[in-house]
Amino acid sequence: MDVYFLGTGAGIPAKQRNVTSIAFKLLEERGAIWLFDCGEATQHQILHTSIKPRRVEKVFITHLHGDHIYGLPGFLSSRSFQGGNSELTVYGPKGIKEYIEVSLAVSQTYLKYPLKIVEITEGLVYEDEQYLIETKLLEHGIPSYGYRVVEKDLPGTLLAEKLIAEGVQPGPVFKKIKAGESVTLEDGRILDSAQFVGPDQKGRVVAILGDTRMCKAALDLAQDADLLIHEATFSQGEEQLAFEYFHSTTLQAAEVAKGANAIKLCITHISSRYDRSEWLQLAAEAQEIFSNTEIAEDFKEINIPFR
Amino acid sequence: MDVYFLGTGAGIPAKQRNVTSIAFKLLEERGAIWLFDCGEATQHQILHTSIKPRRVEKVFITHLHGDHIYGLPGFLSSRSFQGGNSELTVYGPKGIKEYIEVSLAVSQTYLKYPLKIVEITEGLVYEDEQYLIETKLLEHGIPSYGYRVVEKDLPGTLLAEKLIAEGVQPGPVFKKIKAGESVTLEDGRILDSAQFVGPDQKGRVVAILGDTRMCKAALDLAQDADLLIHEATFSQGEEQLAFEYFHSTTLQAAEVAKGANAIKLCITHISSRYDRSEWLQLAAEAQEIFSNTEIAEDFKEINIPFR
Ligand SMILES: [Zn+2]
Ligand SMILES: [Zn+2]
Repeated sequence: MDVYFLGTGAGIPAKQRNVTSIAFKLLEERGAIWLFDCGEATQHQILHTSIKPRRVEKVFITHLHGDHIYGLPGFLSSRSFQGGNSELTVYGPKGIKEYIEVSLAVSQTYLKYPLKIVEITEGLVYEDEQYLIETKLLEHGIPSYGYRVVEKDLPGTLLAEKLIAEGVQPGPVFKKIKAGESVTLEDGRILDSAQFVGPDQKGRVVAILGDTRMCKAALDLAQDADLLIHEATFSQGEEQLAFEYFHSTTLQAAEVAKGANAIKLCITHISSRYDRSEWLQLAAEAQEIFSNTEIAEDFKEINIPFR
Repeated sequence: MDVYFLGTGAGIPAKQRNVTSIAFKLLEERGAIWLFDCGEATQHQILHTSIKPRRVEKVFITHLHGDHIYGLPGFLSSRSFQGGNSELTVYGPKGIKEYIEVSLAVSQTYLKYPLKIVEITEGLVYEDEQYLIETKLLEHGIPSYGYRVVEKDLPGTLLAEKLIAEGVQPGPVFKKIKAGESVTLEDGRILDSAQFVGPDQKGRVVAILGDTRMCKAALDLAQDADLLIHEATFSQGEEQLAFEYFHSTTLQAAEVAKGANAIKLCITHISSRYDRSEWLQLAAEAQEIFSNTEIAEDFKEINIPFR
């Protein structure tokens, strides 16, 4: 589980930061990648990475501002052109369906894979055996959602050495024990599965938020998260400006991470008014409040370890 | 008058060539730039040039395939964000209006300048004192237009030295002569304007064509052009493939330039199947038929001199 930043700028593309897109890489977990937002030229950024568009299984849109969606028609088209044929689902606020459908229809683009478009509301937007994804509305002038991705707890690992010490060889008994069954051996001994399987592995939680002012919903979504990705369009001291434009400062992002008891914070959606030489300072502002903070950069990857 | 290539690839963006956009620079002539097509990340390409988005006065779309239009909403938005406030007109096939309007509306983008959208048909699409622009439908499966930009003839230059030899000093008489008036001097001599003004400067003609098979309309649009920009998606020998996909080969582009008696040909919309090492060969194929051929590259500029 890794987060790979494809675009980390605010509003319009700049040489140092493209507009927003985040690849949430679940390659080991399910051989898939989920995109969060898809600003213009996301597919161009992908050209410089090892990401295969056909591996992208879901795209989650936080809000419909152009810098978060204008790369979507091109990405969807190119995924088809490059041989992607597995289903892809786009989740986003009301309006995303019309935008995608008109863009593809006007350009007479016919995808070679099934495309599903889900217009979301607050609450549970997706669940399977591995993950559940919840959303809440943030504060951004237009509907902007935050996503909380919850990995379900994983069954503990098999304590193979302990079984071998009991005289059991790897094979069918191992499988049954791992699957939670108790097993009666040929000599009559009963092996209790719970004795030979480690504790459940606690699933990870990642909160990926759209543009927003500092708000209660952000705190809720980030509660105890392993990683919170929060926008910090502006520097500390620009709280008034941030409020007027429905954005946050470095300080406010850090307050949310701290208040939510998150493990790690990554700030992104950095205004182009801040030059490369100022980025460390922006991170330092947040670190004053919440020490485990990183500032996102295009093409930066962050691993999310188990606790 | 210069043509500056922002994107010269076919279908999908590649590292070596972005999708189509051409800046037609009329900076000396009218302090303006016209864009022809606006594929995704055209605004990103512009970031690496001296082009100011606010200088872009018109955008001409050849056809609605995604690789020719998906950069339009982002370009239009950023032009506003960067302080562009002068009117901009987009010309394109039927459907361009819905595409732009839905993209801007869904993203709640409000431009700070007046945007006009003109859905074109064949014939005269624009005329002012300096230029007229005609279109014809090409052959591309969907409606794809070629544009013929005709610069009107310019009045000849004033033969100042000849006037001075007649004893006339620079001033009001010069102005009248230049404006085509005959002047009676104080000593009674009559100066005939025609005697003191050089011949009209023949205006230039540039034909910029959308994706197409080799066709009669291309020949018409390129007739006696100073510069023809014609697609050559495929190499010579791939005429069957080109026909099936409604494209042209290097050879066919050259045949059009030759048949139309053009001065210069520039081939573009080059498939990414051809690597940088093969580009000179593609140009050479066309040069066999039409020697004054260049192959376009991203960020290449071609000047169009008077004859
Ligand atoms: Zn926004
Ligand atoms: Zn086309």
